[in-house]
Order: sequence, then C-alpha cells, then structure tokens
Amino acid sequence: MKPEQPAIEFRSDNAGRVAPQLIEALVQANEGTALGYGADALTARLQTRFAELFETAVRVFPVPTGTAANALSLASVCTPFGAVYCSPDAHINTSESNATGFFSGGAKMVPLPGQHGKVSAQALAAAIAGAGVGLAHKSQPAAVNLVQATDLGAVYSLDEIAAIAEVAHAHGLKVHMDGARFANAVASLGCSPAQAAWKAGVDILSFGVTKNGGLLGDAIVVFAPDAPPALGQHLRRAGMVWSKMRFASAQILAYLEGDLWLKLARGANQAAASIAALVGTLPGVRLVAPVEANELFIETDATVLDALQADGILFYRRGPRLGRFVCRWDTSAAEVDALATAIARHVARRA
Amino acid sequence: MKPEQPAIEFRSDNAGRVAPQLIEALVQANEGTALGYGADALTARLQTRFAELFETAVRVFPVPTGTAANALSLASVCTPFGAVYCSPDAHINTSESNATGFFSGGAKMVPLPGQHGKVSAQALAAAIAGAGVGLAHKSQPAAVNLVQATDLGAVYSLDEIAAIAEVAHAHGLKVHMDGARFANAVASLGCSPAQAAWKAGVDILSFGVTKNGGLLGDAIVVFAPDAPPALGQHLRRAGMVWSKMRFASAQILAYLEGDLWLKLARGANQAAASIAALVGTLPGVRLVAPVEANELFIETDATVLDALQADGILFYRRGPRLGRFVCRWDTSAAEVDALATAIARHVARRA
Amino acid sequence: MKPEQPAIEFRSDNAGRVAPQLIEALVQANEGTALGYGADALTARLQTRFAELFETAVRVFPVPTGTAANALSLASVCTPFGAVYCSPDAHINTSESNATGFFSGGAKMVPLPGQHGKVSAQALAAAIAGAGVGLAHKSQPAAVNLVQATDLGAVYSLDEIAAIAEVAHAHGLKVHMDGARFANAVASLGCSPAQAAWKAGVDILSFGVTKNGGLLGDAIVVFAPDAPPALGQHLRRAGMVWSKMRFASAQILAYLEGDLWLKLARGANQAAASIAALVGTLPGVRLVAPVEANELFIETDATVLDALQADGILFYRRGPRLGRFVCRWDTSAAEVDALATAIARHVARRA
Amino acid sequence: MKPEQPAIEFRSDNAGRVAPQLIEALVQANEGTALGYGADALTARLQTRFAELFETAVRVFPVPTGTAANALSLASVCTPFGAVYCSPDAHINTSESNATGFFSGGAKMVPLPGQHGKVSAQALAAAIAGAGVGLAHKSQPAAVNLVQATDLGAVYSLDEIAAIAEVAHAHGLKVHMDGARFANAVASLGCSPAQAAWKAGVDILSFGVTKNGGLLGDAIVVFAPDAPPALGQHLRRAGMVWSKMRFASAQILAYLEGDLWLKLARGANQAAASIAALVGTLPGVRLVAPVEANELFIETDATVLDALQADGILFYRRGPRLGRFVCRWDTSAAEVDALATAIARHVARRA
Repeated sequence: MKPEQPAIEFRSDNAGRVAPQLIEALVQANEGTALGYGADALTARLQTRFAELFETAVRVFPVPTGTAANALSLASVCTPFGAVYCSPDAHINTSESNATGFFSGGAKMVPLPGQHGKVSAQALAAAIAGAGVGLAHKSQPAAVNLVQATDLGAVYSLDEIAAIAEVAHAHGLKVHMDGARFANAVASLGCSPAQAAWKAGVDILSFGVTKNGGLLGDAIVVFAPDAPPALGQHLRRAGMVWSKMRFASAQILAYLEGDLWLKLARGANQAAASIAALVGTLPGVRLVAPVEANELFIETDATVLDALQADGILFYRRGPRLGRFVCRWDTSAAEVDALATAIARHVARRA
Repeated sequence: MKPEQPAIEFRSDNAGRVAPQLIEALVQANEGTALGYGADALTARLQTRFAELFETAVRVFPVPTGTAANALSLASVCTPFGAVYCSPDAHINTSESNATGFFSGGAKMVPLPGQHGKVSAQALAAAIAGAGVGLAHKSQPAAVNLVQATDLGAVYSLDEIAAIAEVAHAHGLKVHMDGARFANAVASLGCSPAQAAWKAGVDILSFGVTKNGGLLGDAIVVFAPDAPPALGQHLRRAGMVWSKMRFASAQILAYLEGDLWLKLARGANQAAASIAALVGTLPGVRLVAPVEANELFIETDATVLDALQADGILFYRRGPRLGRFVCRWDTSAAEVDALATAIARHVARRA
Repeated sequence: MKPEQPAIEFRSDNAGRVAPQLIEALVQANEGTALGYGADALTARLQTRFAELFETAVRVFPVPTGTAANALSLASVCTPFGAVYCSPDAHINTSESNATGFFSGGAKMVPLPGQHGKVSAQALAAAIAGAGVGLAHKSQPAAVNLVQATDLGAVYSLDEIAAIAEVAHAHGLKVHMDGARFANAVASLGCSPAQAAWKAGVDILSFGVTKNGGLLGDAIVVFAPDAPPALGQHLRRAGMVWSKMRFASAQILAYLEGDLWLKLARGANQAAASIAALVGTLPGVRLVAPVEANELFIETDATVLDALQADGILFYRRGPRLGRFVCRWDTSAAEVDALATAIARHVARRA
Repeated sequence: MKPEQPAIEFRSDNAGRVAPQLIEALVQANEGTALGYGADALTARLQTRFAELFETAVRVFPVPTGTAANALSLASVCTPFGAVYCSPDAHINTSESNATGFFSGGAKMVPLPGQHGKVSAQALAAAIAGAGVGLAHKSQPAAVNLVQATDLGAVYSLDEIAAIAEVAHAHGLKVHMDGARFANAVASLGCSPAQAAWKAGVDILSFGVTKNGGLLGDAIVVFAPDAPPALGQHLRRAGMVWSKMRFASAQILAYLEGDLWLKLARGANQAAASIAALVGTLPGVRLVAPVEANELFIETDATVLDALQADGILFYRRGPRLGRFVCRWDTSAAEVDALATAIARHVARRA
C-alpha cells in the first residue's frame, strides 16, 4: 500500500495523516473505566478547556463529521420553514447531500452573491428585506452560514464577520460559522479564537478538527446564551453521540494542547502561501481568490492542468481551466516545490 | 484521573477500554495520503474482509455509533409509513431517542411480546396477520428487529432466528439484527458469523465494535441482494461518512484480525458466566434471563442491591429489585470475585 | 348510482351525507372577492365564533382532515424526540399511517393501558415516572392524546379528563384531544364545549366536523396560552392552508349555527342508544364498551355476524366475533329497526 | 360583508368565486351513503374521466391544495438527497414555505435561469452536467419543475416542454408540471390536455382547480408508468386523503363537464389579453412577460402604481415599479375597463 515514492498530494486536507499527538492521546486515555455518552472526566475537561479557549461560557459537542456539525448546528437554530443564507460555494450548499434540509425538516439553502466564497453583508440585508418576513408562505430568514476559511480559500476579516452579524442579529437571524478550517482562519487572522468567533458575532461554530490533523471527529461550539437547550437530544436522536465519548474528547484536548491546532494550521497555510508566491504572478495564471488559508484555486490554460495531471500530481479539476490545490498540515517542502516547478514549467512551455 | 484502587465496574461494556490492537492499527494506518470518504485502500480491504468473514458478497459501511447503525439500517429497509416489529426491551425502542422514527420519516416501532428480550415468531406472525396489509391507513409491516445478544442478556438460537426470518420473509419484511453485541452472541453460539447472520435469514446487520473493545465506530453490513442501493447517500446526508474513513476501516480490520473480536467477547462472556455460576443458585436471587452473553439481570431483595451500591460496586438499577451487571472484555477476575462475594455476603446476611 | 332500496349502512359516519346547511353556506359565501389563505371576513368571524363557543380566547385553524388535525396538533406541541401517550385503540396509533411520527420528525406513540379506548390517569403517571425524564437516550414525555368519544364508542367523563390533565400538566405534558367525534361527546355529556375542553385541561383540540355532517374539513382549536406561535407556518409548509379559506370557514360557521352540530350529533347518538337498548341484553350479545356516543362494538357469535352480512347489512368486522356499527347524523329509524331486528332474529335462531 | 360597489379585484385568482356548477355538484352528490377515502363510485368515475381526458391510463389523487399537489408530487419522484430544478420564480421556490423540502425529507430546490418564469432546456442540461451525478456528497438531479402557466404569466410552448423533457429523461429525471393554471395554459395553447402533458413529456402533473373556479381541492395526475406505487400511502400519511372523498371527486367531475374548466380559463385569459391590448403599448408601460394566460406583470413608474392603489384598485406590488394583476374566471368587463382606463389616465398625467 506504500507507494514507491511519496505522492505529490493536493486533493484534499482530509487525505492527510493524523497528527501523532492525537493518537498518543488515545493511548493515554485508554485506562480505567468511565461513564459513557459524555459523562466522563475528559469530556468535562473539554467543556472547561473550550471555555478557556474562547474566554466565555460555551457548550461543546464532539460530533463525527463536519457535515454533522454543520447540519445539526443549523437545524438547532433554524425552524423547518426557515431560510439559511449562504454563499453559492458554501459546503452546506454544494457538498453535504441535503443534510441541513434533512435535519431541519426542510430548511432551505438560499445562496447569496459575494466574493471569494463569502456572503456579503449588503446581499444579506437585501435578501432579508425581500424575504417576506412574517408571511406564512415564505421561507423565513433564520440563519446565515459563513464558511471560514471560505470554500475558495479566502478568509473573512473580523470586520466582515461583524458586519454580517450585525445585519443578521438586527433581524433575529443566528450566525453559524462553518469552521471546518477555523484553525487555518485563526492562524491567518492572527487574532484570538474569541475574536474570530463570538466577539465578531458568531452564535454557533462548527469547530473543525479532521481536516487539520484530526482523526474521526469535529465539534459544535455554542456561544449564544439562548442556544437550543435540546441540542444534546437532537444529537442523540441523530445517532451522533458516542458511548465512548472520552476518546473523542481526548483527541480534541490534545489538538488544543500547546496550540497544536494553530501550529498544524500554520504549516498548511505556509505551504499554500509559498505556492501562491511562486506561481501567482506567472503569465496566464490567475488565483481566483486571495490565498489566505491552505487552499489555492488556480485558473490557467487547460493544457497546463492536463500536464500537471500527466505528471501524476494529485489535485481536483473544478472546471477545464480551474484547479483546486489543498495543502495539509504535513504538506512537504518537496511537494510545494514539485507543484510550483511543474506549473512554471508547463506555463513556460505554453508561452 | 486514575482512581486509587480500580473500580468494580459493571455499569456498561461501553465504560471499558479500547483493545490496544485497535489503537495500534491507527498508528500503522497513519502514513501517506489517501482519498477520503471511503475511497481508500483500507476501506476496500474492509469490504473484502467482511465478504470473507461472512462467506458471501456483502457491503460494509462503518458508522459512528450503534444508534446510527440501527436507525440507518432500518430506515434503509423501511418505508416512512412502515412498522418495525421489535421486543419491548429492544434498544431501538427504549434507548435511541426516536432515531429510527426520525431517519425513516416516521416509521413506527411496534413492540411484540416474547421472552428474555426476544421477539417470538408466533407473535410476529400474529402481528402481521392483524396489521391491515395493503390498507393505506395502517402502518405497513416492513421489518423486524432482533437484538443479538438481547437487551436482557440472552442469545437467540439459530433456529429461533430462522423461524422469525421465515415469517418475515414470507410477508416481505426485512430482518434487521441489532448486533451491538454480535461478537458476544457468536462466541456464545459457537457458530460461524455467516450462520449467525444471513444463513439464518438476517438481511442487514448492525455489527457492533464499540462495546467489545472498539473506539468510535460500528458498522452496517448488508446481506440482502436487493439491498437499498442508496444507503451510501443516506449515510452521507446523515453526516455519517467520515472523510478520513481509512482510520475507521483500520480499526475494524484490526478488530477482526486473528479473531480478536471473538477473543474479546469470550472474555466478557466468561466473566458473566462465572458470576452467574457463583450467584445464580443463591436463595432469593433470580436471573431474569439465561446468562448467555455478557450481561446479568439479577432480581433480588432491594436491600441486597442497596448494600452493593453502598460497597461502591458500580452497576445500574433497573428497578428497586432489579440490577443490571455488564461485563467488559477486560473485566478482571478480581471484579468478578468482588461482585459475587458481595452478593453472597449480602444475601446471607439477609436470610 | 342510486340503489333500488336504501342501504342499511353502519360502516362509518364518514359514509354519510353532508348536512345540507353546510352546502347552503357555500352558496351564500359565493359572492364577491376575498383575500386568500384566511385573510377574509368569514375566517375572522370564525375566530370570534369559536371564542364565543368556548368562552375563552382561542385560535382556530380549519384543516382538510382529522388526521391532519391530529398530526399537526401533536407535532406542534411535541419535540422530535418526544413521546405521545395514547390508548392502544387511538386513531393516531392504529389508523393514521404514521402521520404524527412524520410531522413531528419522529415522535413516538406510546400506548398505555386503559378501559374502553381510554387512557387511565394512573397508567399515564406510571409511564411518565418510568420514562427517564431528562435522559437524552429516552423519548421524552411530551403529550397525551385522548380520543373523545373514544375509538370504542365510550365517552370520557369530565373528571376523567381532568385527572389525566392534572398528571400531564404536573410533568409539563400537553393534553391533546382527538375530537373527531367531539360533538357526539359533548351531546352525550350534556355539558358546555368549554367544560368538555379547556376547563377540563385540554390544551389543543382536533375539532371534528367531517364525521358529523361535514364536507371536506375539520379544525384545530388551540387553548394553551403558550401555544406554538408557528402553527400557521407549520400548516402552510404542510400544504394544509386553503387559498379559498372562506369556503372552509363558511361551512364550519354553518355547522355551529343554531347548535346544528349538537343536533346532528344527538341524532347519531340516539340511533346508537336505541340499538343498544334493543340488543344489549340479548343472550350471547355483549357490548364491548358502554354506548355513550354513536358507535357500538358488539361481540357475539360469529354466525350472527355472518348472517347480518348475508342480509346485506353494512358494517365492519373487527374480528370473527366482533362487529363495529356506527350511526350517522342521518341514520334512519328504519336502519335502526332493521339492524336490531336482524340481530335479535339471528341470535334467537342460534339459541 | 357585501361592499357598496363591487371591488376592482386583481390580487389573485384565488380571491374569486366558485363556479356554481361545482357547488351544484355537491348537492347532487349528497345522497345515499358511500365508502370513504376514495372507495366510492364518484372517485372511480374520476379515474375513468381523467383517462378519457388525457387519452391514456392515469392515476388521479384529489388533494386539498396546490402546495400539497406540488410537494407530494415532487416528493414521490425525488429521493431525499435529490435536487429539483425549477425557475427562480417557481411557486415551489418562492411561496410554499419549504413544503417540498419537508415532504421529501430534504430535497433541494435549485433555481435555474430562464425567461419569463420558465426553465430553459439549455440551463437544465448545463446544471445536470455540473451536478456531480453519482457523487454521494452532491444533491442528485431528480426532477424538473415547470410551472404552466408560469409565475410571470407566460405559457411554455409544447416544443419548449418537449425540449426540457428530453434533457430530463435522458438523465433519469422526472418532469413535474405545476399546473395550478393548467387550464389557462391549455386554453392558451389550444391543444389537447394530452398534448400539453404526457405527450410533451410530463410525468406527473399538479392539476389546478382552485384558482379557476374551484373550491377546496386540486389533484395530482400521474402519467409515468413506473410511478410511485406508494403515493396513496404518502398522501394518507400526510393527512391529505379525505374520508368523504366523493365530494371532492364530484367537484372535479363537474369542473370537467362540458369543458367547463376551459371555458372558465378562457374567461380569465380573455380579460388579461384585453388589458394587455389596452395598456401594453402605452409609453412608460412594459409587460414583463408575454401575457399568455391570466396574469399581467406591469412595469411602470411607481407613481402610476401608487395612483392605481389610491384609486382603490386591488392588486399586488412586486416592487416599487412592478405590479401583478391577475384575472379571474369571472373578472368583469367593468373591471377590465376600470383598470385599463386608470392606467392610461395615470400614465398620461405623468407624461
């Protein structure tokens, strides 16, 4: 199963390895007995740890996947006849197989225009104004979904988040952040987790772990003081509550220990930034969005992308002229170099 | 977090440790990159391995929890207006927070009489006969759920399963086995996995791992040749498909390696059998069901149960005079001895 | 389509005619234009009229069917992980094709023992006590469903309702009354509608019209001051809100006009009482429940029931020895006589 | 309740009266008894009548509302993880409070570009091509929804429908027609109902009655030979099946009798055409879409619309400069004249 020579892998950050510290945490947690379903000491510690991390009272729910985190978060703040505003590129809109509609009993995803995978505050305000608030036949504005970092690799500034949250809260909407790449965004912004979340107006956060060195779990973090008291029961009904929860909590505690999560994210971000620096100004190469996290969306001639694939470099085409390249926490300098060199070579050949 | 002296722990098999081989498998799997969502070599191997194990073509879907396995299995074989027959004691009926009703769009749990947590074939036949098959206002018989080992610690014989499956299949129902303790049952029956499952008529199986030394995942195994082709999409919509699936598959492969799963189960079963042998004939002590797997349900005087709790022995009361005692794969001889001795002592004192 | 001689019809009260006053009301309402979806003068009048009828502030929602009324009522007061307690004979449990489970997102029907199609207050208290309130894996007690008159033709006394409501409210459950035959029950009790409903503790009522001379609609009446503000939106999402609502409201107003509803119900009740008086004491005939509304459940020798069917008398067998006979508002004296005479004849022949 | 002088009413076709023939049909149907839930002679006749009307075998299901017809139709042909393509202006997308998402278990509405409220075949083909067919994380193309006449008052030509159906069927999608104004469209096209429906590729049709002189019901008509056999049960579970079905069927039979439905539609269409002819070429007046059925969408100066409202003319603003004017089957010549004259007057004043 081990390839002769390592792959040059840019398909996804979920193609990568687990940070060894998380597996080591499983070994450490594996002694004695403990009550199931979250009634254990490590899960209690997790609650405290997230309160410290975010500098406020929170509730944390480890869940198996990012889709679970998004769909249950949104379902918990959205009525069945509600509308969830999001970017057309948002993961909940493009890649979760109707999960939010399912868990919410029918809530509708409403894509809004915006740049680089972002929702714009103006578009949100306009959509709410035209939504027919209070009319029983209209999907009622319930929540806005921000993907941070975005699905095009950009990062919302704190001001952008705050502007959206202000519009949302003025009309009673909740702000959900899909933080599958929250670590990458916080590392990129250089701010505190609190600043990146509730201080900017986020009510409920899908806290990503898997893509950034995690194993088999992410988490939901609830900031809103009037947050749904029944989220725990919704999760149980959804089959999302592990009986051996302590082993999920142990992983996430290790992920936070000594800022490991930010170190891992910086590795991935740095790899992406290096590639952007090396290829971003090449003729015939366009970065579709600013490279602010660990993803690059590169628009170039189809023959260039074809040639990269012929080289055996692993990445996804998002169109004939559009390639997505994702860096992992452990993307190697060799991979960065191989990709940048190959792009430069194929672009040059073409010119 | 380590107690001064080890707990005498009989609350649940999910309170126990992970078999170290499963964590070691994570370490082994943690190299190189791999495609996500099950498109990796280990998950491909898992498919093959289960086909070998069950001596037939199967499809296997690792899922986070037993509730997920049960609810998605049943939802996949049951219409929204269907009825699922089960024991009143069945986990899906008592302990899964309406998950099957939710995932199926409303399917109804219909408890049937039976002994020791089992469904009886006669009761099933009678229920189907009176169900109003074909009448649009009646919940239509869709599936029968067998918990193996049962929620009272008994084990269905192969003949019992076959008799139920015969009734079910004669009327178009699917047979779902909740095998949260499938390993314990197979170890108890001394038969092959195939005999305990599809050869006896099981169409779809929740294959338990967590309670028997697992970590954070179980699996759905589909035997029925006309099984729902869309189960993969249902799981994705349900947020149940890990992007880093290879780490789930690695665990389950290790769980099967060298019959580890059966060895673990035998440990738990043996502990339960030992206790049963030591206390089962004491005066004033009644075993509510035959102890055929790793659970004992002991009916005795309330003062005896009170005294055990006062001793610090950990177990659950299921009523004033009823205690549930669950053995783990790593329940120690000391625990067995401590419990049996304490019961004998308190019973003697009372007499 | 008109039979040579009129049928002797006891299959169902929904097999009967519409009270002509309701059709006449459609003719009267059919002039001018009016806003749709309930924003018309007749629907406004309906709200006022029900407030008068029930002597308190209420909200009224006309809906197409009794199943719609029951399922939406219960879904509006029940969480998705809730339990709805009911009689095993309750229409929601036996005859609505999982509708309540569907609209509520999975809520579970939990049948409780009781006599004559009733829930007993003691059984309810015991069920709540054993439900595991607050445990996330347990279906949480949410509502109790009372069918009035019951599905076996009995009528809850006001004290019986109050006793159930007291238990329910003490534990935070809502009381739903399935009043598909509410008119029959009120006529039987001889009390005011208010006494039969909220004064006895009912929070939400399915107010039946169809079975008692109605056409194509029933209604939901909400008494609870903290009733779900979103019920209107739930109904809209469910496709249950007629655009030409004024024609639904006109019918229900006519139904109430001059106590028409009670007069119709008295006709049906009297027919049933007459039959009961004529056959109830015959040897070998047993009335399964007191005949307090418009239904009789007659247990007798199978040959008697066979003979009635051979006579062409229309009714349903509920078992070899059990027949259900339902009287309509317009059941004729001739029908009553024909049935009673035939039963007496066949019983005598058998003796 | 009767206004001093008749309203000039252009708010909606559901604001209008019932065609008296439908109420008369209720009177005629109101004798004798009949089995409930569709097992009556009139409903049997309805099946035959629709087969005649559409010149093919069909199944017909009367339902309470157009939303019910749309949502249940689509849910019956769409998996929970499916995508339903539609116009951004489609009623299912704008005005049904997430009903289709709810009944389908989460199916997603995907708006496609097109003119005049239509879906374009090209846009549909492009959307399917980019949908990620077969990928479990992508909403799978399941159905396309055509509103006929469209929500902007235009009518699909038979060729347009056929082109869309060809694309849809080539990729396994079902074609659903929201025929809330099917009568208006057929009258406008001058073709047979069969040509307007299954001969052009429609698989399942919401057959509108309410807006065109109906009372409290529409119908679902299923053409697809492999149509969901369980639709009847889905409707029952949804509380959509009237026990006194014969009175729903009687209305629809009357609606078809002697081509009444087309006569009513021609009345409404003619009124709209007259207004269009009178105002369509006025300076500063633009008809947003061709007036091919009974609706006009008029774009003009805000002051003109303000003045019409000040005149007491009843219609809806769809924006500051956009008014919607809907003609009913009984819109009077006086209303047509009053509206056209007022528009002309206000436009002239402004010039």
